[in-house]
Amino acid sequence: MEVLNKYITIKAHINGAPHESDFELKTVTFPISVESGSNDVVVKSLYLSIDPYQINRMKSYSSSQNTISFAVGIVPGEAIDAFGVGRVVASGHPGFEKGDLVSGMISWGEYSIVKGTSMLNKLDPMGFPLSYHVGVLAFSGLTAYAGFFELCKPKKGEKVFVSAASGSVGNRLANMQSCLAATLSAALGANKRYFPDGIDIYFDNVGAEMLEAAVANMNMFGRVAACGVISEYTDAAKRAAPNMIDVVYKRITIRGFLAADHMNLFADFSSATADHLHKGRIHVLEDISQCVESIPAAFVGLFRCDNVGKKIVQVMDE
Amino acid sequence: MEVLNKYITIKAHINGAPHESDFELKTVTFPISVESGSNDVVVKSLYLSIDPYQINRMKSYSSSQNTISFAVGIVPGEAIDAFGVGRVVASGHPGFEKGDLVSGMISWGEYSIVKGTSMLNKLDPMGFPLSYHVGVLAFSGLTAYAGFFELCKPKKGEKVFVSAASGSVGNRLANMQSCLAATLSAALGANKRYFPDGIDIYFDNVGAEMLEAAVANMNMFGRVAACGVISEYTDAAKRAAPNMIDVVYKRITIRGFLAADHMNLFADFSSATADHLHKGRIHVLEDISQCVESIPAAFVGLFRCDNVGKKIVQVMDE
Repeated sequence: MEVLNKYITIKAHINGAPHESDFELKTVTFPISVESGSNDVVVKSLYLSIDPYQINRMKSYSSSQNTISFAVGIVPGEAIDAFGVGRVVASGHPGFEKGDLVSGMISWGEYSIVKGTSMLNKLDPMGFPLSYHVGVLAFSGLTAYAGFFELCKPKKGEKVFVSAASGSVGNRLANMQSCLAATLSAALGANKRYFPDGIDIYFDNVGAEMLEAAVANMNMFGRVAACGVISEYTDAAKRAAPNMIDVVYKRITIRGFLAADHMNLFADFSSATADHLHKGRIHVLEDISQCVESIPAAFVGLFRCDNVGKKIVQVMDE
Repeated sequence: MEVLNKYITIKAHINGAPHESDFELKTVTFPISVESGSNDVVVKSLYLSIDPYQINRMKSYSSSQNTISFAVGIVPGEAIDAFGVGRVVASGHPGFEKGDLVSGMISWGEYSIVKGTSMLNKLDPMGFPLSYHVGVLAFSGLTAYAGFFELCKPKKGEKVFVSAASGSVGNRLANMQSCLAATLSAALGANKRYFPDGIDIYFDNVGAEMLEAAVANMNMFGRVAACGVISEYTDAAKRAAPNMIDVVYKRITIRGFLAADHMNLFADFSSATADHLHKGRIHVLEDISQCVESIPAAFVGLFRCDNVGKKIVQVMDE
């Protein structure tokens, strides 16, 4: 059986802010079957996580630049892999059957062939909407959880500043209880007003001036967990220049991290988050667009702060 | 008994690079005695540690700036306290006797009255020159020791980059065995040549472009210990702007610290360093000037990289 598969790709490498015209929709015939003896799994996309970091994979790098050499670059014209939730429509792998719900690395398209299954897991929705499993219960949530509890180790009463609190990770964090989390999406100059006692923990998704302002208003032994630098992704000349005299004298720690390093926490994170959700302690903020054609606008909008909450595309109906 | 005490002070606050003309020598009559019933200790200065951080205490700060509010500012015209080694010439404190060797906070002058003794300790020279006790066996050494072993936790074979390796802390570090320490006093652009395998640990005394270059050439999970930012002390506009995309993707930690937070390590540090010295494993590099009049030039020279090794002033003969 064959279908027409629609997917999104980039026309060429993108080095500045992305525009919808940088993307194109391709339509190809696609077999809903696997070769006998293969381990391939064919997945129909249901929900896709739309993440700013993808822009770093879309850039062209000279061979002398090693900045993103540890991420796999996206090739113009080819499918773009992305985290999502889908349903198995054909499987050559004994661990997956047609009809299974799965989450993992699928693609910006309606159908994907997942070769090898290290990037795919069977999904138990635990009674939650499937969209939760690309956001609050997935990497956005894990980033917030690991960064907050593992890296920042908050103590009761500490003041926490979260940048981009309307974004996916920021929004998760701003929901965490036991610390005062101020949800400011643009806090320049407002730091002193909202944090008269200074900042103990800054969760940085933004970089540039926001990081500088946070460091300037930070208390002794403050901690910055940096999981993203969205303001710097699309402007190679844009840099954070925190006052290093502050960093030394206030003994500030600035630490970059990726959620993928903290998969050992996933089970704890998942059950804690499910519990918070059941008890109504987390207010889930999602911004969901429909169908594969909306992916470029959804992605481009991340860099214009169009989204309010975790940006998700529902690619196809369940 | 009275003497004429010569000491150095600042004429006014200094906000840029210091010049010798910013300082003046004052001569005052000074009692070599203590009031009966006081706990004061009068110390004759032998060796003084000349440290870049003092410039931060010489600046004028508006009340809205909190950058260095946790350090005590230096008042124009008054004595400047500094770490040194001296000999007690009069004491009202039962723990100190005339003739005792001491180390602690004395001043940029020939004689100091130390009020309260929390900043003063009796000194056992352990057979080493007294100058060692303001450098390699004092805070410069402790900074290197604590920053290296406590903060950076080096693993065998890791590549360590030390900036300002001809300075006091850098020189101590560059001497530490068990890791390859490259001693480059100006390494911009040279990083790739000297570190073809990248940098795992960067000990930052400099800030600005040096920090940026180190981060750019850093390996995954690299650590930066920042104990000083000499290039930024005298130029308020000068800032390090490390690439935060590197910091996130390479999971780099940048951590400010001061040796004073690690006094719990002093005994370990002291015995380990003495042992290394006895075995000839540390090559001590000192740059010693004579007499109180040389203090301004010694201090100003730090910011011009005039010193080769730990800058010390021998104020008076033993």
